Amino acid sequence: MSEPEPSLSLRGVFIAFEGGDGAGKSTQVRLLREYLEELGHTVVVTREPGGTTFGRTVRELVLHGDHVAPRAEALLFAADRAHHVETLIRPALERGDVVITDRYMDSSIAYQGAGRDLGVEEVRDLNLWATGALLPTLTVLVDLPAEVGRTRRQGVHDRLEAEPADFHGAVRDLFLGLAGADPTRYLIVDGELPPGQIHELVRDRVATVPGVAR
Amino acid sequence: MSEPEPSLSLRGVFIAFEGGDGAGKSTQVRLLREYLEELGHTVVVTREPGGTTFGRTVRELVLHGDHVAPRAEALLFAADRAHHVETLIRPALERGDVVITDRYMDSSIAYQGAGRDLGVEEVRDLNLWATGALLPTLTVLVDLPAEVGRTRRQGVHDRLEAEPADFHGAVRDLFLGLAGADPTRYLIVDGELPPGQIHELVRDRVATVPGVAR
Repeated sequence: MSEPEPSLSLRGVFIAFEGGDGAGKSTQVRLLREYLEELGHTVVVTREPGGTTFGRTVRELVLHGDHVAPRAEALLFAADRAHHVETLIRPALERGDVVITDRYMDSSIAYQGAGRDLGVEEVRDLNLWATGALLPTLTVLVDLPAEVGRTRRQGVHDRLEAEPADFHGAVRDLFLGLAGADPTRYLIVDGELPPGQIHELVRDRVATVPGVAR
Repeated sequence: MSEPEPSLSLRGVFIAFEGGDGAGKSTQVRLLREYLEELGHTVVVTREPGGTTFGRTVRELVLHGDHVAPRAEALLFAADRAHHVETLIRPALERGDVVITDRYMDSSIAYQGAGRDLGVEEVRDLNLWATGALLPTLTVLVDLPAEVGRTRRQGVHDRLEAEPADFHGAVRDLFLGLAGADPTRYLIVDGELPPGQIHELVRDRVATVPGVAR
């Protein structure tokens, strides 16, 4: 695969939340949205997989369908992401909005890389191509021991959630490895802290992102 | 994207038919199947997109859905192909069967490369990764001027068929370029010849493939 071109400079701010299930990402997304709207930003909140109509079909196919071959699964998530970036995220950033997404390419790297017989580097390269190398301004990793996430989250389980505990441990390690390798682009927060306290840490960091403070 | 590993040697024979719509590929697939079955081979006939249940959903999404971003489209076709190879083509080749597919990765290279703002090389690399670099033993290109194919084919048109004539001309040129660059793996036949005569040309060439003659 040829080298992806670097993203053109975009006016908006792109923030991703990553972490295992049950880490409390959606609460943090909501709290951060409120904070940014109070500052006067137009905020677009979205998610992966399934941030678009196209993506919701893909999501159904992958998470609740029959067995899907590992490369096919990685390619489907990348297809969803390519469409999501092209039709929703990039246009919002070009308008100067703040985009907050619940999961982005690190989830593919961590989940597919951890247990799907695919290398972390090949999944990353695939996703860089899919997105035209659009990386978040800041990624917040809400870190939680795998067993805590599982206990918190009850109810319907999809295919990825139903994986054994050592898989989720490997996912966590991969998330931590990605974040640890690039501290300027990542904030790691302890998902066992109270939600309000996590939000304060997120807010303090987001406020330092160029273009956020007003 | 890291280099794909070469395919392990497989016992079966893998034959792809490529070419524009209306070239008469499905007739040729049927005639070749009959010939190979008479020789005592177990023949698996399939198609792309849509050779599996998963693939049929993908096919619907791409060909009859709303606008899909170019990279998303290429990734979806690659996902279909990855699943097709992993669950159907490779197992059949491991059993020693002959697999005949109506379209394979050259169709993605030609169609996405021709008009979808993507480079031929990046689509090829994507598909080599998707398939674990599984290339056909022989690819038969049924070549036809674009306007002849369009005249032959009436009825429901999908999104790709509805492209303008110069798009189909570019597709044809790309097919011819792929085939011309590797004559040991390709047979180019003139799609304006009578079907029986095309079949004779195909049969004569297929008979030279190791493992076919008995």
